[in-house]
Amino acid sequence: MVTKRVECIGESQTLEVKALESRLRAEGKNIISLSAGEPDFDPPEELLVFVQKSLAGVQRYEAVEGLYELRIKIIEEYNRRFDSCLEVDNVIITVGAKSAIALLFLALLETGDEAIVISPYWVSYIPLISLTGATVSVIDSSKDNFLPSIDSVLAAISPASKLVVLNYPSNPTAQVVSEDFYKELSTVLGGRDLIVLNDETYLDFVYPPLVPASIATYWNDNFAIVGSFSKKFAIPGWRVGYLIANKVIIKAVKKLQSHFFSHPSSIAMYGALGAFKVGQKWFEEKLKEYKDRRDKLVSFFDDLNWNYLPPKGTFYIFLDITRAKSLINVSSSVEVAKFFLQDLGISVVPGIAFGNDSFVRISYAVDNSKLTTFMERFYDWYRRVR
Amino acid sequence: MVTKRVECIGESQTLEVKALESRLRAEGKNIISLSAGEPDFDPPEELLVFVQKSLAGVQRYEAVEGLYELRIKIIEEYNRRFDSCLEVDNVIITVGAKSAIALLFLALLETGDEAIVISPYWVSYIPLISLTGATVSVIDSSKDNFLPSIDSVLAAISPASKLVVLNYPSNPTAQVVSEDFYKELSTVLGGRDLIVLNDETYLDFVYPPLVPASIATYWNDNFAIVGSFSKKFAIPGWRVGYLIANKVIIKAVKKLQSHFFSHPSSIAMYGALGAFKVGQKWFEEKLKEYKDRRDKLVSFFDDLNWNYLPPKGTFYIFLDITRAKSLINVSSSVEVAKFFLQDLGISVVPGIAFGNDSFVRISYAVDNSKLTTFMERFYDWYRRVR
Repeated sequence: MVTKRVECIGESQTLEVKALESRLRAEGKNIISLSAGEPDFDPPEELLVFVQKSLAGVQRYEAVEGLYELRIKIIEEYNRRFDSCLEVDNVIITVGAKSAIALLFLALLETGDEAIVISPYWVSYIPLISLTGATVSVIDSSKDNFLPSIDSVLAAISPASKLVVLNYPSNPTAQVVSEDFYKELSTVLGGRDLIVLNDETYLDFVYPPLVPASIATYWNDNFAIVGSFSKKFAIPGWRVGYLIANKVIIKAVKKLQSHFFSHPSSIAMYGALGAFKVGQKWFEEKLKEYKDRRDKLVSFFDDLNWNYLPPKGTFYIFLDITRAKSLINVSSSVEVAKFFLQDLGISVVPGIAFGNDSFVRISYAVDNSKLTTFMERFYDWYRRVR
Repeated sequence: MVTKRVECIGESQTLEVKALESRLRAEGKNIISLSAGEPDFDPPEELLVFVQKSLAGVQRYEAVEGLYELRIKIIEEYNRRFDSCLEVDNVIITVGAKSAIALLFLALLETGDEAIVISPYWVSYIPLISLTGATVSVIDSSKDNFLPSIDSVLAAISPASKLVVLNYPSNPTAQVVSEDFYKELSTVLGGRDLIVLNDETYLDFVYPPLVPASIATYWNDNFAIVGSFSKKFAIPGWRVGYLIANKVIIKAVKKLQSHFFSHPSSIAMYGALGAFKVGQKWFEEKLKEYKDRRDKLVSFFDDLNWNYLPPKGTFYIFLDITRAKSLINVSSSVEVAKFFLQDLGISVVPGIAFGNDSFVRISYAVDNSKLTTFMERFYDWYRRVR
């Protein structure tokens, strides 16, 4: 009854893990979830107050490309922070970063085309590429210390390549690239006949001494950026993101958006506008809190002499499960995640969801008591079996 | 740079009319817009109060299929009003009716398939079908008094037909079908190997003595309904709609929705939930007001002995422009719309946007002073030239 494009998305490989979690919860088991990709904080008060004040006047249709004032503010901030010369017509507001990515792919990719994705990758890139009819060429970054190597990107480019998808700071690896990376990228890929997208959903989630870097700093007409208000301002459910790209692409995406959903929810866009009323200090405090949690986890795994990718940003830690596999005698990240659920009452995302079966992703966007419980349970288990 | 699927959507045929309107407005010309498809009323107070109260707790990700409580309420209301036996898993909340339609088409249609659409049709059906790679077979309802004839639908069905798209009450014709139509539809098309969608965005916009009728009353597993909170509760900018269909289709659309935008904006869904707090009287008063305006317009055109389709529902009147074409010596609805803009300062939508070049669509979802100005300007012009 349904189309090939729906079937080819397939069921998520992590579905059986989620099903097990639901069953265990239904049975009353106490599960600590470290699998969610959303902040545990409340949004800033100023943002909510702004929405409250705007509420009476946000009922009507808005422009397809989103609130003009919001687009201006996004572009001004990028230009100020990253010394770019972007214009308001370089941005369109979307229903979260997801729909920016989905519509960009529909605008750029079709059967016969190829998109290059770096593994470990965020979960929706490949299904959304498949939906367009294009094929995916995956570069395994694990050979390059989990950082994208420009040489390996160059080697992967074929005449069919229309798009390279980057995502730094990276969900799930928590690795970060520097401004120099974008400079080199600009030299090598700037002006070429393919689009280079950086998904900057976690742009500001970078721990000192590193500083946020954007592909905007070395902007080229064939570059594109996806961004979001969800993580930074703790409003993931509101669904407001944006796409920055050249005007031809923005126009194409606008055309798609007009037919797919007219525009993002007006009231949610007012929330994003309210985010610009929030002082810098609010996020600085949150980032410090995330950093404290990261440091706690890092010390914990260091003490156990357990391998992981040292997180440079985001709120994830990508944990090596080679040792877990041999201790519990299983061979896949799905089995490890199921074991953690069943025996430890801990929910994590198996690495295979991101294209790497040797890791699991742990989110520390949870309060400290949950983190402590996680460490206790993990330690108890490990002490018993090691 | 962009894909064929974007190019094949093409620029809207009404773009030049919109461009002219923008230019005239920029030049300071007083334009009365009767082209918008959105209520001029404010949303009900209870709805806004409910959102205000919910605001502090709606930040997190929600289920892909939308708020459970909202889905329950939608299904309960359909079952109660239309005597159906739908279940909560028969509905998914979407980003307005548009994304329900877009994702349904992506779930059902692919290259080689065909969708049957009845003309005059709502503007986004054909672009959204084209996006899937399927072809469109258009049935011209003007031969059947602008009502869908089941015989003509049957005659249009080929082995490639996967979908029939209905839209009653109809935007733009303002024609309405009765329960008997759905009964016959069920007898003839129920259980067949193709999906019959009725877009019920204007479900409740039906003028007495007629009463709202839904395809749900004679539900079959191959039927589908698209609905919206936008028009009835005057929150079009919020973008909340829904799709009702069999569970296989809902599951497929859910899969697409999970990758396209996770779920509709949480805060907007709380608005829809708030709509269920609103007493019936609120909409009854609005409907009465729409009816008064309709009656005014109908008398006006009757007095001029000017042809139109008598509106049975919605807030549109589909005006025959045969006489206008000959009076101003042009041949298309676009030229008539441009003339109305330029010479009368009146903005309407040319019928060609809906597949019929002999009409323009006039919206009376505007306050009475605008309607009065419209009638004055129209009368002044007609008196001069007739």
